[in-house]
Amino acid sequence: MALDRRQSVVLESVRRFLRRSAYSHLIKLLAKARPQDFPSIYEALPDREGMQIFRLLAQRRPELGADLLVELPHGEAPAVVRKLGPALSAELLAHCAEDDTADVLAALEEEERQALLEAMRPEDKLAVEKLLLFDEETAGRIMTTDVFALHEDTTVGDAITELQAREDVEMAFYLYVVDERRHLVGVLSLRQLLLHPPETRIGSIMNTDLLVVRADADQEEVARVATKYDLIGVPVVDDQGRLAGMVTIDDVIDVMREEATEDIFRMAGTSEAERVEPSIVKSARVRSPWLLATFVGGLLASFVIGYHEEAIQSVALLAAFLPIVLGMAGSAGNQTATVMIRGLATGRIHQGMFMEALWRESGVAVLLGLLYGVLLGLGSWVLAIVFATDVLGWWAPAVIGLSLTVSMLISTTIGAVFPLVLERIGGDPAVSTTPFVTTATDVFGSLTYLGLVTWLLF
Amino acid sequence: MALDRRQSVVLESVRRFLRRSAYSHLIKLLAKARPQDFPSIYEALPDREGMQIFRLLAQRRPELGADLLVELPHGEAPAVVRKLGPALSAELLAHCAEDDTADVLAALEEEERQALLEAMRPEDKLAVEKLLLFDEETAGRIMTTDVFALHEDTTVGDAITELQAREDVEMAFYLYVVDERRHLVGVLSLRQLLLHPPETRIGSIMNTDLLVVRADADQEEVARVATKYDLIGVPVVDDQGRLAGMVTIDDVIDVMREEATEDIFRMAGTSEAERVEPSIVKSARVRSPWLLATFVGGLLASFVIGYHEEAIQSVALLAAFLPIVLGMAGSAGNQTATVMIRGLATGRIHQGMFMEALWRESGVAVLLGLLYGVLLGLGSWVLAIVFATDVLGWWAPAVIGLSLTVSMLISTTIGAVFPLVLERIGGDPAVSTTPFVTTATDVFGSLTYLGLVTWLLF
Repeated sequence: MALDRRQSVVLESVRRFLRRSAYSHLIKLLAKARPQDFPSIYEALPDREGMQIFRLLAQRRPELGADLLVELPHGEAPAVVRKLGPALSAELLAHCAEDDTADVLAALEEEERQALLEAMRPEDKLAVEKLLLFDEETAGRIMTTDVFALHEDTTVGDAITELQAREDVEMAFYLYVVDERRHLVGVLSLRQLLLHPPETRIGSIMNTDLLVVRADADQEEVARVATKYDLIGVPVVDDQGRLAGMVTIDDVIDVMREEATEDIFRMAGTSEAERVEPSIVKSARVRSPWLLATFVGGLLASFVIGYHEEAIQSVALLAAFLPIVLGMAGSAGNQTATVMIRGLATGRIHQGMFMEALWRESGVAVLLGLLYGVLLGLGSWVLAIVFATDVLGWWAPAVIGLSLTVSMLISTTIGAVFPLVLERIGGDPAVSTTPFVTTATDVFGSLTYLGLVTWLLF
Repeated sequence: MALDRRQSVVLESVRRFLRRSAYSHLIKLLAKARPQDFPSIYEALPDREGMQIFRLLAQRRPELGADLLVELPHGEAPAVVRKLGPALSAELLAHCAEDDTADVLAALEEEERQALLEAMRPEDKLAVEKLLLFDEETAGRIMTTDVFALHEDTTVGDAITELQAREDVEMAFYLYVVDERRHLVGVLSLRQLLLHPPETRIGSIMNTDLLVVRADADQEEVARVATKYDLIGVPVVDDQGRLAGMVTIDDVIDVMREEATEDIFRMAGTSEAERVEPSIVKSARVRSPWLLATFVGGLLASFVIGYHEEAIQSVALLAAFLPIVLGMAGSAGNQTATVMIRGLATGRIHQGMFMEALWRESGVAVLLGLLYGVLLGLGSWVLAIVFATDVLGWWAPAVIGLSLTVSMLISTTIGAVFPLVLERIGGDPAVSTTPFVTTATDVFGSLTYLGLVTWLLF
């Protein structure tokens, strides 16, 4: 987030006001800017000055401080809260949405969390403790309990009066309709409300065809429902069907982005965990399992190659084509795996397409395998001339090229089948497919290449 | 999209009604279901029956047919339109949102497109031709021109009356305020409208702090603005600042998903183009350039290895560790590259962090390189015993392990630096980084491994 000119000017003013203790000017400046533009300013400030701002706002303008706090990048808000201490933090969090407060609290150590909860107003504490009961990454955890819900016997006129009276409702685009025990029975858009005379009962004009998620549903399920049915908010119900809250579209978008990043990271053998606490040791630990898979595959390949030691000893140039065969097979297998994994994630590919997918990917593999097999044959012929080795006869290039074609076909098949199998048995294809394909490619590729070469040429 | 039990029942009824020509029953059934559930039904039908449904709906219930048409997976709607012919298609498209119609038209051949445009009502034709003027993947192309906009002198009461009169406005959550030349001057949420007495001028209560995008802005820019500022809709203006339309949040979500998929595909060396027309030849063509990069890297490595032919001839087991060194270095380099590419895409990493990122990734590489270097040293020692080769002395394992550590450090550095450099010179890191890292790893890894081994052991 590089600063643009306007932001640089704001940054300069912020620092000047801080130096001169011109606090009311500073507050006026911050209040005028968009909260979403604050993080890049904050990031450019020394730690001490950043904390000075939050301390000032907690004391004088906690609602503004709360707006700025929740815009900070992932993981930064808890750090600020930790440094502010419970009393000032409680002031800020009193003005945050509960799901944001829950996120901050969940990131703290047990002791800090308790101290902070004690410092909060009882009603805020209660609301956020309710959210903390749900697991991370569930609907209950990301919902807001502050929804606009009215009894089905309310009239349109009263509903409008009620809406006018409640200023703080988050993203009030829908009016949820409940019965006397708060069971969700219908929904109305604000626009629909305007289309009927004031004395109409809302129960008589509401839509009863409801899409809801349970509070313990995975956040991915929430995103799936919201995006499939183009909803601005998804109502969340408890196990009794009672309205517990709603997940707003901005939280859905955060979930989508998180999941996409997680998938991308997983496919390369690392994880979003890196983002949260970016220590070098932590990163190394997160990336290590994937490397272990590559390592095991490579070591198994070493054994396969060692077993063919004699062939290599007699024609050392054979070793020269091992990396290219394994590399090409690995790339082709992972291209296929990527298409399959993303297709499964977006629902474009499903289990019923097993044979179709296998057939299609094999076709692509044969085409590409033949193309690059011929190229490798030519390449090996050139190499043999350059290094003046022609022990294996004129058809050696053909065999080397053929081994590439076969290896690519094998790795592509693995890349197509493995994600489907993994999903069927309930695993996450994005986590284990790429390392598995790489490992399998190293082993089967070495076997194919050296096996074919020694069988046909010796 | 496997069918659940309810959907299977619906499917059975659809087929029965079609067989018996019980068309009004069929229409009633389709009207009752959610349009978003239709694609899985449609997909399970034979082509002929699917077309029968659309033909029927175009004649009797075009607005329902339009709802179902736009829900079909990417690329299917143009196929249906092609088979329906211009006259019936025009009936359906008259009830689609213009951005959906534009998408369908853009996917047709020039001749088909002209025939269809001629068959459309003049006002529909005009509206969609306006959208088609904009490039694909711009705000102008994905916006709807059907926005709720009123003059600033309108009163709150008149605005509410106006809103009640217009039934078909897409996602009316905001009321845009314009001056006499349709310049966008403010915005109001429907809720704000309700908070003021009917005689209030909307110009006096609107928010003038507007976030807008230009019609020629990239769709990614629209998504960035909408998600950063949590907007349900982003107003689109022309180059004169006049309101041209709005992009709704559901289109923003489509853009986000498209871009994430595109990034994932690019990083594995393929492209979303695969999705649109999934022919085997097309797929092979899309994937080929990435494989070419791997091929070139592999062939260069072959030359490096061929150059060290003598060393391999004297100790053939040396060849056994080439794949593992290249594989590990490649994996480590690509993990780093993935973290960098995604970080750049989400804005978490920026150019100013060049040294910081390099330092951090090198640290991770040294840790992991040392760990797996030691393991490879041990592995090579075991392998030498198994295959009874110990020509190179007891420190050979140490040299082999060291070469892994150095190779991983080199490839990680490339993976960290290359995306930043590519972005600085205006390239897309997701397209070329992974193949470049793989190619570079093959070359530098072979050089490092064989160079170190021959230098230190011979």
